Amino acid sequence: MIKPQSLIRSQVRQLHAYVPGEQPRVRGLIKLNTNENPYPPSPRVLDAVRKAVDQRLRLYPNPGADTLRAALARLHGCAVGNIIVGNGSDELLALATRAFVEPADLLQTDLRRPDPGRGVAEALSAQVARGVSSRLVQYFTPSYSLYPVLADIAGAARNPVPLTAGFDLPGPRELAEGGRWDFHAALTFITTPNAPSGRGYATRALEALCRAQRGVVVLDEAYVDFAEENAMELALRYPHVLVSRTFSKAYSLCFQRVGYFVGHPTLIEALHKIRDSYNVNGLGQVAAEATLRDLAYYRRNFRRVIATRQRLAQALASLGFQVCPSQTNFLMVKPPGPATAEQWLEALRRRKILVRWWSAPEVRDFLRITVGTDGEADVLVATARRILEEM
Amino acid sequence: MIKPQSLIRSQVRQLHAYVPGEQPRVRGLIKLNTNENPYPPSPRVLDAVRKAVDQRLRLYPNPGADTLRAALARLHGCAVGNIIVGNGSDELLALATRAFVEPADLLQTDLRRPDPGRGVAEALSAQVARGVSSRLVQYFTPSYSLYPVLADIAGAARNPVPLTAGFDLPGPRELAEGGRWDFHAALTFITTPNAPSGRGYATRALEALCRAQRGVVVLDEAYVDFAEENAMELALRYPHVLVSRTFSKAYSLCFQRVGYFVGHPTLIEALHKIRDSYNVNGLGQVAAEATLRDLAYYRRNFRRVIATRQRLAQALASLGFQVCPSQTNFLMVKPPGPATAEQWLEALRRRKILVRWWSAPEVRDFLRITVGTDGEADVLVATARRILEEM
Repeated sequence: MIKPQSLIRSQVRQLHAYVPGEQPRVRGLIKLNTNENPYPPSPRVLDAVRKAVDQRLRLYPNPGADTLRAALARLHGCAVGNIIVGNGSDELLALATRAFVEPADLLQTDLRRPDPGRGVAEALSAQVARGVSSRLVQYFTPSYSLYPVLADIAGAARNPVPLTAGFDLPGPRELAEGGRWDFHAALTFITTPNAPSGRGYATRALEALCRAQRGVVVLDEAYVDFAEENAMELALRYPHVLVSRTFSKAYSLCFQRVGYFVGHPTLIEALHKIRDSYNVNGLGQVAAEATLRDLAYYRRNFRRVIATRQRLAQALASLGFQVCPSQTNFLMVKPPGPATAEQWLEALRRRKILVRWWSAPEVRDFLRITVGTDGEADVLVATARRILEEM
Repeated sequence: MIKPQSLIRSQVRQLHAYVPGEQPRVRGLIKLNTNENPYPPSPRVLDAVRKAVDQRLRLYPNPGADTLRAALARLHGCAVGNIIVGNGSDELLALATRAFVEPADLLQTDLRRPDPGRGVAEALSAQVARGVSSRLVQYFTPSYSLYPVLADIAGAARNPVPLTAGFDLPGPRELAEGGRWDFHAALTFITTPNAPSGRGYATRALEALCRAQRGVVVLDEAYVDFAEENAMELALRYPHVLVSRTFSKAYSLCFQRVGYFVGHPTLIEALHKIRDSYNVNGLGQVAAEATLRDLAYYRRNFRRVIATRQRLAQALASLGFQVCPSQTNFLMVKPPGPATAEQWLEALRRRKILVRWWSAPEVRDFLRITVGTDGEADVLVATARRILEEM
């Protein structure tokens, strides 16, 4: 009898799967754990999708999402060749690791990571050779927890480098002095605005960092519609910079899986070559196209979310929470003692409010709370007050 | 200035993209080129999808497609752990190459393919060492033209081995004597029934082949609902056999991208670990779940397609076409001379009928024609008759 375990690549056998935020469907639950938009898609978008639910479902969707790409090109003032659409931006982030980073398997054994829980880079000296850099996925901590998972899946080495104490971006000089950053890393992911802290970054600071990098830089702007600035211009100015966007959060289309990258046509073409032929489902394309025809609706929602965010930040601060400045649709907060953040997570969950917490050392004192509606924010604040009174 | 070409892995730079069948939206065109079902999804499925187009679109879909997997497990009499759902079965076929096959990059240079248009395996001796087998994607020719593309994307070596002259499956003894087949190949794809020939295979013959293989075997049953037999039992009996199914063709859901694999939980878990977290869009899950509640509708359609297939086969044979026996929703036919198959493709296209043709030597004398409605079949036959008269 064949042992199925023996049929799996050893690199895959060692993997730990990414753990997505919970998606429970519990009645009355206030779900503030996965940064979904509290407002539904626009009525026109819902209508366009409903109208498309007909005999066309039997046909393959457009394999290149060409109509959607043309609309995105008009929106961003670029060519269709600058754009690739993915099954959510997660697919594109994964494709980037496979297009731009060599598997670390190719390294000599002594450079391999000692155990799957730790990055290779941490085992390497500060002056990594070019041969190692081409196998390196680099990112700041904390940021999107998917990046190390993608590096592991691609069999690439990881280089996590801390943000400043206030979750700000270190400058190129600071990074050079720190000695851990690799300016030749094959692929660098920068979540901007940052998640989970919510901190926004100036385009000027991002540009300085991009100019110092020799490998591909992905500016992951999943939350940028809630921010003061965006860095789209960098993707169209520098041949090694890609900007990642998604319809999930700002455009209330998580269910439909549509994201995109903007960048140099040569990099974009490489990603097209390795994606699945029909990677974007047809109704997702219809929904995204309709969204771009009704942007005014969404801009109103952005303003509402931002207003609620400010109210919520003030209310939590007045209860003693330390609130990080946010340019996103969530807040990272350090709850007042004596309870730990993990205990707060549980206390809120018992009261049917779901927020997010991670055990990683740099964020374990914090909760990440999605900005919901004003009503949800009120319930959250009242609940937090009650928990504090009971302590 | 950074040269973007230099940022792309050399293995990816050399790739040729898969060319999907055309999806033109021309008025009055009879589209018989991509094996779509001529009948729409059931009214109940359309209704279920329309009803789901509401505020839930703002939420992430179930990351594991758990409700759908539970329904599929009931259908096939297996456990949820035996099933993974993908963004179309194409995604799962790609995941299989990445979970079970080592990149051939790891081979010494002299075993690398001389040019990207030819398989490595052809450059290797018949008795390949185990070290090479673990890097080998194996499949019959002709079969689904995506397999070599997936092998190339994964950086794996390819081993294409011809079917018999009548597109039948060689037995293990025949394969051993032929000397080109590798019984240790890390991954073997078998399209059953075969595409593009339409030939069906007995479960007994498939089982004999599976028993002779030491690596993973994927039985790609994309068209099996139009066949006399299916081999699902093999996926539940052998730890190294996976069966691939799709909702695209038989269940008229190409637009929605839903496919699945059934097999040993250890192999299935490996695929889960490397898939995108939310790989199956929510409305696709809704549509597939509703489909499984209305199977009687689809079984009626299978019978209609099979009846049309028989009528069409007879009519084309009576015009002098050589028609391969088909257990699918398409026919592979060799048109009567003096025109070549490629000239027939063009002659039909000028008359607004789109069929499929490949330039590969083993199939270039044939056209692959999707079985449409009775009306479409009648137009096709009348058009072919007119073309013959004009010759």
